Formats: sequence, structure tokens, C-alpha cells
Amino acid sequence: MTGIKLAAREEQPKTLIRVGNVTVGSDFVLIAGPCSVESEEQTLRIARAVKAAGANMLRGGAFKPRTSPYSFQGLGLKGLKILEKTREETGLPVVSEVLDPRDVAWMSDYVDVLQIGTRNMQNFSLLKEVGKSNRPVLLKRGMYSTIAEWLNCAEYILNEGNSQVILCERGIRTFETYSRNTLDLSAVPAVKELTHLPIIVDPTHGTGKVSLIPAMSLAAVASGSDGLIVEVHDEPEHALSDKDQALDPDAFTDMTRKVFRLRTFMEELA
Amino acid sequence: MTGIKLAAREEQPKTLIRVGNVTVGSDFVLIAGPCSVESEEQTLRIARAVKAAGANMLRGGAFKPRTSPYSFQGLGLKGLKILEKTREETGLPVVSEVLDPRDVAWMSDYVDVLQIGTRNMQNFSLLKEVGKSNRPVLLKRGMYSTIAEWLNCAEYILNEGNSQVILCERGIRTFETYSRNTLDLSAVPAVKELTHLPIIVDPTHGTGKVSLIPAMSLAAVASGSDGLIVEVHDEPEHALSDKDQALDPDAFTDMTRKVFRLRTFMEELA
Amino acid sequence: MTGIKLAAREEQPKTLIRVGNVTVGSDFVLIAGPCSVESEEQTLRIARAVKAAGANMLRGGAFKPRTSPYSFQGLGLKGLKILEKTREETGLPVVSEVLDPRDVAWMSDYVDVLQIGTRNMQNFSLLKEVGKSNRPVLLKRGMYSTIAEWLNCAEYILNEGNSQVILCERGIRTFETYSRNTLDLSAVPAVKELTHLPIIVDPTHGTGKVSLIPAMSLAAVASGSDGLIVEVHDEPEHALSDKDQALDPDAFTDMTRKVFRLRTFMEELA
Amino acid sequence: MTGIKLAAREEQPKTLIRVGNVTVGSDFVLIAGPCSVESEEQTLRIARAVKAAGANMLRGGAFKPRTSPYSFQGLGLKGLKILEKTREETGLPVVSEVLDPRDVAWMSDYVDVLQIGTRNMQNFSLLKEVGKSNRPVLLKRGMYSTIAEWLNCAEYILNEGNSQVILCERGIRTFETYSRNTLDLSAVPAVKELTHLPIIVDPTHGTGKVSLIPAMSLAAVASGSDGLIVEVHDEPEHALSDKDQALDPDAFTDMTRKVFRLRTFMEELA
Repeated sequence: MTGIKLAAREEQPKTLIRVGNVTVGSDFVLIAGPCSVESEEQTLRIARAVKAAGANMLRGGAFKPRTSPYSFQGLGLKGLKILEKTREETGLPVVSEVLDPRDVAWMSDYVDVLQIGTRNMQNFSLLKEVGKSNRPVLLKRGMYSTIAEWLNCAEYILNEGNSQVILCERGIRTFETYSRNTLDLSAVPAVKELTHLPIIVDPTHGTGKVSLIPAMSLAAVASGSDGLIVEVHDEPEHALSDKDQALDPDAFTDMTRKVFRLRTFMEELA
Repeated sequence: MTGIKLAAREEQPKTLIRVGNVTVGSDFVLIAGPCSVESEEQTLRIARAVKAAGANMLRGGAFKPRTSPYSFQGLGLKGLKILEKTREETGLPVVSEVLDPRDVAWMSDYVDVLQIGTRNMQNFSLLKEVGKSNRPVLLKRGMYSTIAEWLNCAEYILNEGNSQVILCERGIRTFETYSRNTLDLSAVPAVKELTHLPIIVDPTHGTGKVSLIPAMSLAAVASGSDGLIVEVHDEPEHALSDKDQALDPDAFTDMTRKVFRLRTFMEELA
Repeated sequence: MTGIKLAAREEQPKTLIRVGNVTVGSDFVLIAGPCSVESEEQTLRIARAVKAAGANMLRGGAFKPRTSPYSFQGLGLKGLKILEKTREETGLPVVSEVLDPRDVAWMSDYVDVLQIGTRNMQNFSLLKEVGKSNRPVLLKRGMYSTIAEWLNCAEYILNEGNSQVILCERGIRTFETYSRNTLDLSAVPAVKELTHLPIIVDPTHGTGKVSLIPAMSLAAVASGSDGLIVEVHDEPEHALSDKDQALDPDAFTDMTRKVFRLRTFMEELA
Repeated sequence: MTGIKLAAREEQPKTLIRVGNVTVGSDFVLIAGPCSVESEEQTLRIARAVKAAGANMLRGGAFKPRTSPYSFQGLGLKGLKILEKTREETGLPVVSEVLDPRDVAWMSDYVDVLQIGTRNMQNFSLLKEVGKSNRPVLLKRGMYSTIAEWLNCAEYILNEGNSQVILCERGIRTFETYSRNTLDLSAVPAVKELTHLPIIVDPTHGTGKVSLIPAMSLAAVASGSDGLIVEVHDEPEHALSDKDQALDPDAFTDMTRKVFRLRTFMEELA
């Protein structure tokens, strides 16, 4: 594929990335948590619930990229401190989004995985900066991006010396309005034939609809995904952002049980 | 959903459609065969191969909707006679596309399931005509169509008195060029919450790439699809149409084994 | 461009098509009228208004392709008879959509130009049938269609012997929801460099919003369009279809005056 | 429109922005120049040519957002110094893209207008930073962005205190491949009914094809655009970026003459 060198599949065997007790690329990764960190209590409560259900990493936004400047923009440093404390309490490694190249260095003290969101996939200054970090990077696909463009963004990070890139398919923008985005699961086998980097799937943003998430999570596992990232909130109707797409802990627990059983089955099937 | 009455989920329990020995909606449907019927020998050879692999219906185009008027347009009646003969030899029910309302009545003598292709999803004259037929109809989603529009097209058929409609997700048109279309698997759970009609998936047109078909077929099963329709050709490189997306019988056999095992597992998981 | 032979620009000088007193391809064509023919009075009233404003053809649907089977489907033959009578009264040639290949021959007695709608652009049976007609054909671009596919559909008509094809850009489907479709005016110069066929623009469906139509009509003229087709209704709020996008006669009259003045200016500028 | 306050049309009369001798929002703005600043000679040569043709601002990239990390990334500070010198020589104000929030303050010493590119439209850190600058901002529409999202990004800038925002429609991503993007000219009247901010059009990226640029520039003027931004290179075939879409000075001169004449005509027509 044009332009891809370090990320190209021929370059090396599958990349394995150690985060806490999990090896991304061989273990199945299940990242769960609230859209936004709202308070210490909320975050800890949800973290314990998702851990009990089987999640092996915690997600939570401290800096939120919002369409409107008047929407809740996240707790910032305060949110990161809550995430740090929650990790200490639960042992779950933390994934959180970085929006600004000036935040990369110091945020790396608080989080285990730096997330690049869909709107910043081609924010090349930010890519170069996380490329200089020693933290693994979760690189979401731009909602408007071809697979080729996405892999070139991974190449930007690799080219700066950071080889720990986890790709994340999160849906692309189409004319369909029933779902918030169109989850492109064919990106999973496509990425696997093009690169050695691991890929996970975000069914929450990929569908934007609680009712579609369980089926699409199972489909993601069957397509060969290395993991999932899912929004969970214990009071979805009171969430400060993305309230329509957060699973509650019960639905998440039920789904998780099926996801892990299917993953085991798929490994036997291969 | 606006406009849907007879097709609405609340209207009745899941629709079951008997075709040959298969009950669409409860049995897993595996429709396979060449893009175009090219000759009696080719069709019979491929039909035997896909039956041996586990397919329970045969697909094959006699009338081909082609972008250019100068491309192979199908064998027409001769092709239908080949399909009829192949059914006699193999026992496989036949699915074939109808392009013209004037052909619906007489084509029904040759085929078991009338297919409405993606370009004709909103060909309302054709929909009304198959609505008057007593044959089951395989209604492909328009490559440009929302789920709401698609279900309204099913409603056109139901409204004429034919309740045997099988929906088929086959990929939508997006900006991505790595795959031929973007297979929208979230349509499977969406359709299941909106209607009582069965839905199958076409990974062949949905991806347009042989290398992506097995993973997407498994993902379709995990998403809850009632079946698959797949193009198979024993000499893909010599096929008169769609040569880049046809599986060869070996690849199809390997995939089929996994598909049925996964289907059985999913039934246990539910 | 792949597959285009008879339609290719190199093939001949610009196609000129005589309809009534207008030569499509040299005169500026302004087709206006209601979305649907609703009654004799309504049609005649609107026809007189658009003629007074400067329109040189009348549009009006007798067969309406509607998303839902329960929406108004048009008056059919009765509507065509109204159009015929209106032509007698006003002298305006009539453009009306044909949906079914079985209707082409007899509808040609009632209309001056057969319209192929966006949903039927790749209805190849219908294309072949209008290709055998001696009536000019207005071929709308599919809302999901590339320019290449569109020109291949014109080629289907030309290949049957009918060389009188008028192309019509009417907006494509994108993620944008502010307008109903995205009017692709770059299709005008694109078509002009690829083919000798005339092209007009439909700002009504292209925007779906009354407030955007005048600006886009002027832009269409400046882009080199050979004409416009516009929906006009004298009681838009009571129209049986497309009520949000119909101009009233006053707005149409104001716009028409500017459109013709701009057209004259553009001819001098060239 | 949801979320828009300071940018809303009701808020104030049309925003006028003074840049050099031009008042954006009342004078017609014609910004032209090379995609990338390549050398002092090249930049000065092209600047003189576009000025002679009628351009009233110079564009030129010093920091280039490129799909691949291995493509030419721009001359950086050296490029900005060349732009500064070119302004001194020609008197043309300079527009150049800023990619990184850390560059906003010091770049403001070198450029007259800070450009936010399509990939950074929702780079909120960057938006907030240019919002604190006293330089006018050219805010390109994201290739994947609705008009509502775009105006919310303008709102981010206004909300920080910088009211000098110029919007720029530059084409959106669709399925069409004949043009590089689909130029959405209906955004011009849409923006005018929603906001008081001026809007210009980029036919270069909007089409990606030299042959389509003149017609779309005229169409933009007729749609009501407050200006154009166009790539010009005197040796397009040797350009270090975007070589297929740069006009040569002769083509630009010819187009400019028509653009200004049409602008004058449109003002009389209104």
C-alpha cells in the first residue's frame, strides 16, 4: 500500500504491546468505561463494574473534543488524577484521549495508553508528538478516512520511533442515519493483510445505539478483532456526554460473557 | 419506523419462508454459485461443488445488470433453462435476478426465488410485480439506500400480497476504495429490531475482494444473519463477470465449514 | 472514459435536440411546473404562471416514485391527459417521468420528453425501452452514481438508436443533512469535457430547500448548464408531494429574470 | 442552528474583515499562489504573476499536512521568511496554514491570515489558540463535516475573542472519483442564511482538476461567494505538491478577468 513502510505487514511479525497484564495483539483486549470522567465516585464505581465483568483496561475522557464550545469539555487535569487514582484502586490500566501536542509529555505520567481521536487522526503535529512518547498509542480511524490514510498516520507515529500503535476502527460517516456512523468491520481483515499492527473495534461510536452494540461486538470478534473499546455508564441517562450509546453494567456484563466465549471459540476454529 | 406497517416487527412473529428443504428464518441459508450462468457444464460443476461444501441454494444470473451496454448481459432464457436443469440434477433451489416487470410471471416457472438487485431496489414497478408473484423475493439493499427506504421497499412487496420477502445486506457506497462497497453489518441487528422479515448478507459484493470474504462471512453469522449469499467460480480468472470477487470451491469449502460451526455455536450462545 | 463510445465527446459536435420551439443544447432550457399533476385547474394555473415567467417547457409527474407505497402515487393516465390538455392550452411542451418499460410506447403519445428518474438511472430495461422510442429522454443522474456510470446509462439509450438524450444533474447523496442532496455542479463542466450531450441542472432536488434554489440556479448557469428544471407550485403548503422545495410563482418569476440575464451575460463572456 | 450563538446571522450585520487593501465581506477576495513555498524565486515569480492578474492576496504553504510522513512537509520557518519577503516586494498580504497550536503566536508575525486546513477543522486546541490571536482566520470546511459542525468550529474561535473568521468551502468527500472532492456550492447560500461571517470558495481542492476550475470559479461567484482561493504554479509539472490541480499563470489570468467581470455583473443583478 502506497507510502507504508514501517507499518507494512512484510516488515515484521505481528506487533505485540504490553499494557498492564495484557498483551495487545495476542490477549483479547476489552477496554471499557465512561465517555467522560465526571467524578471520582462515578469513575471508580464504573471501573469496578467493568473489571468485574471482565474488562482489562479502563477508558475515560479527561479532555473531550466536543462539536460545540459550550458543551462540557472534560475535567482536564482533575480528570486525569481521578483516572490515576482509579488505576491504583482497581489495577486497570488507563486509556485517555490527548488533544494537544503540548499535553503529550505530562499526560504520559497519568495514562497507560494515549488515545488519538477520530477528529485528530490527521493532526500531524499531535501524531509526531505521540511518536516521541514511550506510551502505547490507540489510533482511531478518522470518520472520513480511507484505510490507506489511516495506516499512513500510524506510519507517522512509527517514523518518530514509537512502535506501539494500536489501530481502532470506530465507524465512518455515510448517508445512513439509523446508526450514528457505519461500522466498517471489513477494515479488520483489511488491516490484518496490510500491517503487523493490532486492531480493535469501537462498537459504541460505530453504531451510536445501545441496541446494536452487542451484535456488533460479537461480529467484531468473529471478524478477527484483537479487542473492543466500549462505553459503559451506570446511569446512562445522567451521563454528561454520549448518553444514548452507553451500555449499563448489566448489559455490558452479559455481552462480555458472550464476547469472551466467542473469542475462545474463534481461536479453536482458526 | 416511518411508513412501515406490514413489515413492522410488532405485526407478527418472525417470518419463515420455505424454499426446497430449507426454512429461511430458522435454518441457516447458504446460497452460492457463479455470478453469471455461462454454460451448462460450468453451472452444473459449480453447483455440485457448492452443494458438496454445504450450500443449500444455488445462485446464478441469467439477466445481468451491467454498467456498460457492451458488457456481457447474461444468457437470458437459455441461462434460466440451464438453472432449471441444474436444479433437477442437484436438488438445489435456484435464486436468480429479475430485471424487468414483464419477466416476473414467466421467470417464476424457472426459479425458486426472485432476486431484486441493488440497482432496482426502488424500481417500484418491479416491486409491485414481484409482490403479485407467489415466489419468495430476495430484496437486496440499494447501495445508496437507508434502512428505512429499504424496509419501505419490502412494504411495497408485502402490500401487493406477497409476504415472502428475504432482505439482503450487500454493502453501501462510501468514500472507501479498498473494498468495493462498505458492508454495513449493523444493518443485521437493525433490521431485526425493526421487522419480522429474515435477513441475509452478501459478503461478495459487500467487499468485492476475495481476501476479505471469509472474515466478513463469519462476522455476518456472529451479527445474527439468517444466511449468506456468496459468489463461487471454479475458474475465477475466466469468469465472464465479477472475476475478482469469486471464491474458488476450495476456499468456499473451507469457509463453509467454519460458517456452519460458528452458526451452531452462536445458537448455543444465545 | 471507460465504456463510452457513442456518447464520447470526440464522436460528434454538440448534440442539439428540438423540443417545441426550443433547441436544447443551444437555447437555454427552463423546465418548470409542479412535482405532481394534482388536477386540471392546478396544472393549468401553474403552467400559465411559469410560461409567463419565461419557462419554455412544463414538468409534471403523473407516475410518482414514492418511498412509501402508502404515499400518493400520481394520477397516472388521468394525469397524462391533463398534461396533454395543458400543452394544448399553453403551447408548452411536456416533460414527465416514466417508471415502467411497459408504459414507454403509449406514454410517448402524451409527453414530449420522457424523464428517467434518479432511482431508475440504472433500470436497464427501461433505458433500453426509451432507447427504442423517438422521444427525447431526460436522464437524471442517480443519487448514488458516478459520472462514469451515468454516461454509460446514456450510452445504453444511444446504443438502442435514440440519440436525443439530455443529462440532468440533480444532486448526490452525501452525509450533509442541511440540504436534501448535495448538488454537484462540477458535473456540468465534467460532462461537457466527456460527452457531446446537453446537460441541465435540477436545483429543486439538488438542494431540497426553497431558500437555496435561486443562488444554485444562478451558479448552474455560470457553470455552463444548458438549462434548469425547477418545481413550482402556487400553493406549496398544499402540494401532494415535495411541498418544502417548491418555489411559488413570484419567487420563480424573480429568479427567472435573473437567470436569463445571467445566461446572456455568460454568452458574452465566453 | 444548534449551538451557534456568536456566529448566528441574527447576532449582527455581515462581518467585514480588513486585510491589506481589501475588505473581506464587501470587496471580492482573490487569494492565489503556490500550494507550497518552494523557493524565494518561485514564490516571488508566482506572486508577481497572480498580482498582475488581479489577485489581492497571496497563498503559500510553509507547513504542509501530507498524507505520508515521507512526502515534502514544507520549508517551515524558511518558507515563512520567503512569504514575508514576497509581501514586502509585492504588497500582497499573505495567507498560510498553521498546523500546531505552539506555532500560532510566532507565525502571526509572518502572515496576515492564519489558515486552518480541512484536516484540522475540529482540532479544538488549534481553534482556541487562533481564537486568541489578533489575526484573521481562514477556516476551511472539514472534508467530512456538516455545515452545522463547521459553524460550531467558527464559534470556537469567536468564543475566544477573535471575530475575524473567513469561512472557506473546499469540497467534501463523496463516492465520486472523477473530481478529487465534491465542491458543495450550496454551502455558500446556506452559510449566508445562517451566519454573518464571510465565505469564500476553493475550487482547486474542490475539484482537484485543472479543467474544472474555471467553470466552478464562475459558479462560485454566481452563488454569492465573497471570494476565491486558487492554487497557481508557473511550472505545475514540477510542483512539489498538488501538481495536477495548479493553474498556470495564463489560465489564471484568463479566468480572473471573467471572474471579476461576473462579480460586477452579479452586483448589478442583485
